[in-house]
Formats: sequence, structure tokens, C-alpha cells
Amino acid sequence: MSQTNQRIDGKRLWDSLMSFAEIGATPKGGVRRLALSHVDKTGRDRFRAECEAQGLKVRVDSVGNMFARREGRDPARAPVLFGSHLDSQPSGGKFDGALGVIAGLEVIRSLNDLGIVTEAPVELVNWTDEEGSRFGHSLMGSGVWAGVYPEDHVRALKDTDGVTVADSLDAIGYHGPEAARPFPADAYFELHIEQGPILEREAKQIGIVTGAQAQVWYDAVTIGQDSHAGTTPPSTRKDALVCAARIIDLVDRMMRARGEDGRGTVGQLHVSPNSRNVIPGEVRFSVEFRHPDQAEIDRLDAQFPREAEFIARDCGVELQLTTLFRIPPQPFDPACIDLVRQGAARAGYSTRDIVSGAGHDAVYVARHVPTAMIFTPCKDGLSHNEAESIEPEEATAGAQVLFEAIVARANRTL
Amino acid sequence: MSQTNQRIDGKRLWDSLMSFAEIGATPKGGVRRLALSHVDKTGRDRFRAECEAQGLKVRVDSVGNMFARREGRDPARAPVLFGSHLDSQPSGGKFDGALGVIAGLEVIRSLNDLGIVTEAPVELVNWTDEEGSRFGHSLMGSGVWAGVYPEDHVRALKDTDGVTVADSLDAIGYHGPEAARPFPADAYFELHIEQGPILEREAKQIGIVTGAQAQVWYDAVTIGQDSHAGTTPPSTRKDALVCAARIIDLVDRMMRARGEDGRGTVGQLHVSPNSRNVIPGEVRFSVEFRHPDQAEIDRLDAQFPREAEFIARDCGVELQLTTLFRIPPQPFDPACIDLVRQGAARAGYSTRDIVSGAGHDAVYVARHVPTAMIFTPCKDGLSHNEAESIEPEEATAGAQVLFEAIVARANRTL
Repeated sequence: MSQTNQRIDGKRLWDSLMSFAEIGATPKGGVRRLALSHVDKTGRDRFRAECEAQGLKVRVDSVGNMFARREGRDPARAPVLFGSHLDSQPSGGKFDGALGVIAGLEVIRSLNDLGIVTEAPVELVNWTDEEGSRFGHSLMGSGVWAGVYPEDHVRALKDTDGVTVADSLDAIGYHGPEAARPFPADAYFELHIEQGPILEREAKQIGIVTGAQAQVWYDAVTIGQDSHAGTTPPSTRKDALVCAARIIDLVDRMMRARGEDGRGTVGQLHVSPNSRNVIPGEVRFSVEFRHPDQAEIDRLDAQFPREAEFIARDCGVELQLTTLFRIPPQPFDPACIDLVRQGAARAGYSTRDIVSGAGHDAVYVARHVPTAMIFTPCKDGLSHNEAESIEPEEATAGAQVLFEAIVARANRTL
Repeated sequence: MSQTNQRIDGKRLWDSLMSFAEIGATPKGGVRRLALSHVDKTGRDRFRAECEAQGLKVRVDSVGNMFARREGRDPARAPVLFGSHLDSQPSGGKFDGALGVIAGLEVIRSLNDLGIVTEAPVELVNWTDEEGSRFGHSLMGSGVWAGVYPEDHVRALKDTDGVTVADSLDAIGYHGPEAARPFPADAYFELHIEQGPILEREAKQIGIVTGAQAQVWYDAVTIGQDSHAGTTPPSTRKDALVCAARIIDLVDRMMRARGEDGRGTVGQLHVSPNSRNVIPGEVRFSVEFRHPDQAEIDRLDAQFPREAEFIARDCGVELQLTTLFRIPPQPFDPACIDLVRQGAARAGYSTRDIVSGAGHDAVYVARHVPTAMIFTPCKDGLSHNEAESIEPEEATAGAQVLFEAIVARANRTL
């Protein structure tokens, strides 16, 4: 196995990550860079300036997605895209999203330093509002770009202060002139932290992401009867929380029955009236299942509503279950996956094939452009948390594989 | 069984209840009369005026408890007390508390109309802040009076706007000159709606309350690890909500194992971070058990922490369980209970002995004064709810039995 002698600069990458993490830094070591906020604008302005300093030309589309282009030798070739997102969760970490963009900047710097002219142009992308924390709509920029979400609908979304996406884009000057829609592109590569524990547990440096899981999401409401906790005997209770609790247990058991590939979670739950001595009359909660295999999701989707209804009937409680959405699995492009695999091998990193459990901009981009993703480990699998942490050498490995894949794709013989 | 020929005026009672329910009336037919608010002041002022119009002398103590005295023939005798509370839940009903006070007013009017002079004086009481909705401390007025709660502690309690009990008493002019502590009293009778379904289900007109349940209350916190719902495999999950759900199920099963006398409730629950695609890292919830038999509460109190801990260990989650308080059962006074029983029999009402599931001012008063309570049915057992409802004849029956018990006690041969 021959090792490459073209290396990105790990120290420069780390310094750049740490410097960028100062924008919206929180006291606990995380970042708060909500999409289209003035903090996000500061990040975007810095990103644009650094791209321009590297000789790139930056375009902005109508939902604020930013494309920084480095020309190739052959102007007729479609560009190789790569990137991620610069927005964060409200109490987010330094690396979720930012790693993919800042590593992309390091790829550009390395191409410049090494004097490499690729055959195809390359374009570094910052997708708008991946997190969905402010306007309640994740994967917003890539979703509009990919035609998954109507732009008018997204522009009208409001944050909790009633400010729309459209007004926020104008306010920070990132309502760009370019239409947000797919343009001819040769490939898309996205480097991201795993946001899970698998690579760390197995001591693998690189996750070769072969696709994204299938998902089904529900909203559930259990409706019983709120009544006095001290006076209502067992036989007349209609306790919406006891019913919800048994459904939460069901979700967990259905997940575990699928082994290590199964995911089943109740993340959000509200009790009403939520008073110590009142039997809960209504509980609203989210339910989601994920699995790499669509057939398994189909079985879960057939089984869960039926078994949850049995529980509700047994509790004398009404269950209202609404399917929010079903997402089919998104396999990534075999050729692009191979370039990631070859790049990791050339650089000498240990690898593992992995299916993305989280949603990523790459999942929507993959509907139009051959796509692959690269995962790096993160400490304790922790993400969406200010304590999110990775090692400098893990960032270096990810950026190096990204570099390898981009150069190989941009220089491939057509 | 001889029926009494001294009857309270059911129509006047009902009109008075409806008129009083206009103070703090809500659009959905309930009342919002938070303790020591200006709405409460309006209710108190009306109560005082109606008492004075009946020739009573009204005293106010230092926590705002109101005592309206009708003199008896023998000034040396200790008074027979009766009453309840005029404050309500934030979305409360027309009858919880108000029934006991307004029926007391009807007893006074009937005594006057019938020209009855009792041997002992009688005193109608309005206890301050029974509900605890505003300052988070139920049974406040009767608790301070009975010496259960230190007055300084209670005066310093704040509502969510930071206003103290002391300031609120001053603001509405109900910081009275009399010390809030037990004085010699011959008995205490309290009429209240059942707030449960038992009397209605068994078609009984009067509940003869023999005492109050023993209780044990806990605060529980399950501490796991919040992590990404899509990326965290079953083997590494530490889901605080799955753990809490299994403990909620445990509480319900432990209650049902005790039959119809058992009570076990999780009424309040908060999930953190409470985000759809994040496995909950922390859940805080209340747990309470009630039972008429102290030995059963002792067994629950020994068994529950141990079994909950087993569940937590099995889930890989930390459980922090704090005992908030244990309340022993409070038996009422046999002679006072008998007077209620005899009164109901004289008036020809169907009865059932019942143990109070809820806390009542009577439970604290009973520590110093021979006490009994009278329950009337309420529709569907519903209380702490704007839809709380009783029939006029149910109010009449309760007031008539209250009248019988008071007259019998105040005229008893010493």
C-alpha cells in the first residue's frame, strides 16, 4: 500500500478550527451559532474572506447557501463539490458541521501550497441552516437546493421571535442572486464527525459512509382524564402518562429486537397538566425509528401503531398517532465511496464501513449528485453538546481523506 | 328514623354559590381565585360583608385566616368551628373549597332565620391558601395555624413574580392582628366535594369521612447521557426517559397490587434536553403513594426505592430519589364522625364511610381540635378543573348535614 506524499497541514487545520470556534463561543467550550443570526453572519463573512484570500470566487444562492469555486484546468468539466454547514445547535459543539467546512478550506490551502491544478473545478459549500434549531426545519439550505422543500414555504418559516427566514437572509445580507437549485456537479464529498460511538469504540480512524438510514417519525398523543391523584381509585384512572410510559418501553424493546442496527427513540415529551397531585390527562411525545434496511422500517411501521394501540386500549386511554414522515434509505455513490476508501488506504488510516444515523446535507445532495461522506470519531460519541470533542489527529485524518477523494475525483479520466 | 324539621334553604345556598363563582370566573365556567391575589381579596371582602350582615364578628389572623363568630348562650364554652377555603386552583372549579365556606354561610343564615341560639358559639372559617398554586405551598393557612409550618418560612415564600406571602397579605389588607395559632375550640367540621368518583359511582349522597390517607412523596431524577438518536446504538444508550418510563410503570403496578385503596401517581415530569432526535439525558419527576393504612405506606416506602434502583441499574442510568415528606394517616374524631353520621341519618340521606384521598385543612386542624369532614359527590369525580360540577341537591344535602352536626355539637351537654 503506497502512501501519498501530498499532505494537508494538520496544525493549520486545527488552528483554523479553534479560531473559527471563537465565533459564538459559549462559556462551557461549545458554540452557539444559530442559522442566519448575526453570529452566523460573522462566521459567513470570515468564511468568505478566507476563501477570497485563497483566490476563490464565492457565490451565494437565494437561501444563503455559499459556493466557493477554485477553477480547474478544464472549464468544461462539472465541479467537484465538498463542504458541510457552519450553523450550530443552540448549545452545540465546535465540530458538528464546522469540521467539514474548515477542513474544506484546508484542502483549498493545500492545493494552493502544493501548486496543484485539478482537471475539474472544485467548489467548497457552506449549506444554510443544517441544524434546524432556529426555524424548526433541519437541512433547510440543502433541502431547498435539492428541491425537497419548496423555497416559498421555507422563506416564510418564523423563529420564536416571529422573524422569518426571508427577513433573516436580508438582515444579514445573504439573500444571494443565484437560484437555489441543483446545477451540474460531478460529485459531492462531506466530512463530518460521526456523532456516535462506533468508530471510537472500535478504534477506527475513518468511517467510510455507505449511505443513510431509513427513518419513520411519528407524533403521539395519549388522552386520558386528568383527575385528583389522592382521590381517584385504580379502577377509574385513565392515566395518559402510564400509557405513554408503556409505549416508550415498547419503542425501546422494538429497537433492541433489531440488534445493534436498530434505532428507536422518544426524545420529546410534554405532560399535561403536569402537576404533582394530578393524574396526567394528556401526554404528547415524539417517536422515531431508524434502520439501514427499508424492509425493517416497513415492519416497524406496520407493527408499532398496532402494538401501541393495544397498550392504549389496555390503559383505557385514547392514542392519536400521526406519521410525520418516512425517509427511505439513501445509498451513497459506489464510485465516490471507493474514492474515500482508496484515499484512506493511501494515507494509511484504519477504516470501517458505516451507515449514517444522523441526517446530513449529503443525504439530500445525493438525490442529484454522486455523493459520499467521511466520518471521523468524536469523544464518547457525544454531539449536539458543548462538550463535543475530537483530537487534532482525528481532524487531520478526516481532512487528508477528503483531500485524497477530491483530488482523485477532480483528476479522474472521463 | 326521625327526620329533622329544621332545614337549610337549598335555593339560597345555590344562588350564593353561583354568585360567589362570578368572582374570578373563567370563560370555561370555572374560577381562578389565586390565594392572596386581588381576586381573592374581592372574595374575602364579599365574605366578610355577608358575615357582618348576618351579625357575625370577623377576626383575621396574621396569615389571613378569617374567623366569623356567632355568639352562643354560654360565653364560657369553646366555639364549634366549621369552614373551608375560598382560594382556587389556577383553572379551578366553582365548588372546591367554596362549597364548605358558602354552605357555612347558609348554616349561619338558617340559624338566624330559625332563631336558634346555640349553647356554644360557632365560628365560620376561611383558611388562607389551601391550594398552594401561587406560592407552591398547599394548606398554608391551616398549616401555620396548626403549627405545622413556621410562620416566618411561609411569609417569605414567593410567587413566580417574586412577590412574597408577607407582601401579598399587606397588599390586600389581610395581615390581621391575631396570632395564627390554635385557640380552644370544641370541634371542627368541614364540608367538601369528594374530588373523586366513589360516591357518584355508588350513588351515595353523603360521604362520612373517617380520616385522611397516609402519604409518601418523592422527587426522582434519572440521569443517563444525552446523545444522538440516529447514531447511538442500543448497546451504548443510557436513556433517562426509558428508565423513567419503567419506574412510572412500577408505580402503577405497585398501586394496583394494593387494590382499590391504593394510590400511586407520577403527575409531573420534565425531560431534558427534550429534543426529538436526542436521547434524553435527564428526567425529573414526582412520585407519590397514598393509602389509608400506615403499614401499607411503610411497605411501599421500603419497596419502591429498592425496585426503582434495580430498574435504573438495568438501564445503566443513575437514579436520585429524594423523600419529600411522609404524612401519617390522620384519623378523625369518633364523636364528631358520629354527629355527621347521625345528621345524615336524620335528614334521610344515603351514606358511605370514606377516607379522604386529598389533603384538606381539616387534616391539620385535626391535630388540635376534634374534627370530622363531610363529602358530597362531584360529577365524574372531576376536580381541579374548570368543568368541576355538582347538582344543587347535592350541595343542599351537604349543607344540611353540616347544619345538623354543628347544631348537635354546639348544643351537646358537657
